[in-house]
Amino acid sequence: MPKIVDHAARREEIAEALWRVVRRDGIRAASVRTIAAEAGWSAGAVRYYFPDQDGLLSFAMDLVSRRVTERISAIEPKGTVQTIVLRYLDEVLPLDAERRAEFDIWLAFTAQARAESDAGALQEHLDTVHNGLRQLCESLLRSLADAGVLKDGLDLRREVDLLHAVLDGLALHAAIQPERTTPSRLRQLMRHHLESLMAENP
Amino acid sequence: MPKIVDHAARREEIAEALWRVVRRDGIRAASVRTIAAEAGWSAGAVRYYFPDQDGLLSFAMDLVSRRVTERISAIEPKGTVQTIVLRYLDEVLPLDAERRAEFDIWLAFTAQARAESDAGALQEHLDTVHNGLRQLCESLLRSLADAGVLKDGLDLRREVDLLHAVLDGLALHAAIQPERTTPSRLRQLMRHHLESLMAENP
Repeated sequence: MPKIVDHAARREEIAEALWRVVRRDGIRAASVRTIAAEAGWSAGAVRYYFPDQDGLLSFAMDLVSRRVTERISAIEPKGTVQTIVLRYLDEVLPLDAERRAEFDIWLAFTAQARAESDAGALQEHLDTVHNGLRQLCESLLRSLADAGVLKDGLDLRREVDLLHAVLDGLALHAAIQPERTTPSRLRQLMRHHLESLMAENP
Repeated sequence: MPKIVDHAARREEIAEALWRVVRRDGIRAASVRTIAAEAGWSAGAVRYYFPDQDGLLSFAMDLVSRRVTERISAIEPKGTVQTIVLRYLDEVLPLDAERRAEFDIWLAFTAQARAESDAGALQEHLDTVHNGLRQLCESLLRSLADAGVLKDGLDLRREVDLLHAVLDGLALHAAIQPERTTPSRLRQLMRHHLESLMAENP
């Protein structure tokens, strides 16, 4: 009888092992070897899912994207449009240990993609992730514009670029100096940036 | 006769070799071995300046800080305060190949410091670099405030944090997608952010 492997289930299992290693020991500790040990698999079995460190980072980045997408899909559109927009932004800011681990994976992945001498598969994957966050910023600003709460005469494309920059910049600062850029400070700064785009008397 | 080594001159020489390797082949190609080959030194001689990859990144980050400081010191305070402020910001944005290479070093250094399981010497160095840029943002906003061109009632501490986030976020985006976030787009977005803080009729 041929050996039947449920790849979806095994992929899930290896993703969970990877997540445990990153949460416990940081992204630097994640390697084919440590993740195999965590999952109780052979290194060879893990290499089916990611053959090397680049593959590992790409796999981890996929996991992060999936986690963020799931949280975003679960947001209930209750309250004012401003409240809802802030709730979306909360899901992509490193406001707790889980989301900080996600950000660390993003940072390691981005630095690795940038450091590739031949802009290859990692850069393509990075583009997808980057464009995804940009599209989120765009649809959030569009919701605010449609609700008529934005200032008149804003150049929306420019504001999308700036919101995206503020988001990534703040996330970076929360990672670099968590004691200064605390979760409440992060949310406060994000809220203030959005308010600066709002009409005085909506 | 004892061998006299001019460490300052040798440090300069190794910094130049490192810079050539990073500019030509990217930060990922930089290792004790490749830099030794570039400088025409033995690996052992290079290890006096940085014993390992962490040491190399720290050395490279020092080099970047020195380059930025030199350019900033050379800025002539001519023109309106807004023009001068933008000139300072230009020196910390990746607007050309030289400054993009500097940013890549910063990114690799930051990711490495963040990925350290024991927040050690790299994190301390990262704090210094991070605080340096924050202080630059603070003194630029203070100059604008002193010149009376900022909007009334701005919370300066908050605006410093946001300007710093915009700066790092935009630099990151220029590194990730240089074809979208071009140098002229970068300067335009930076200028627009500053203008949003200005009084309507200064």
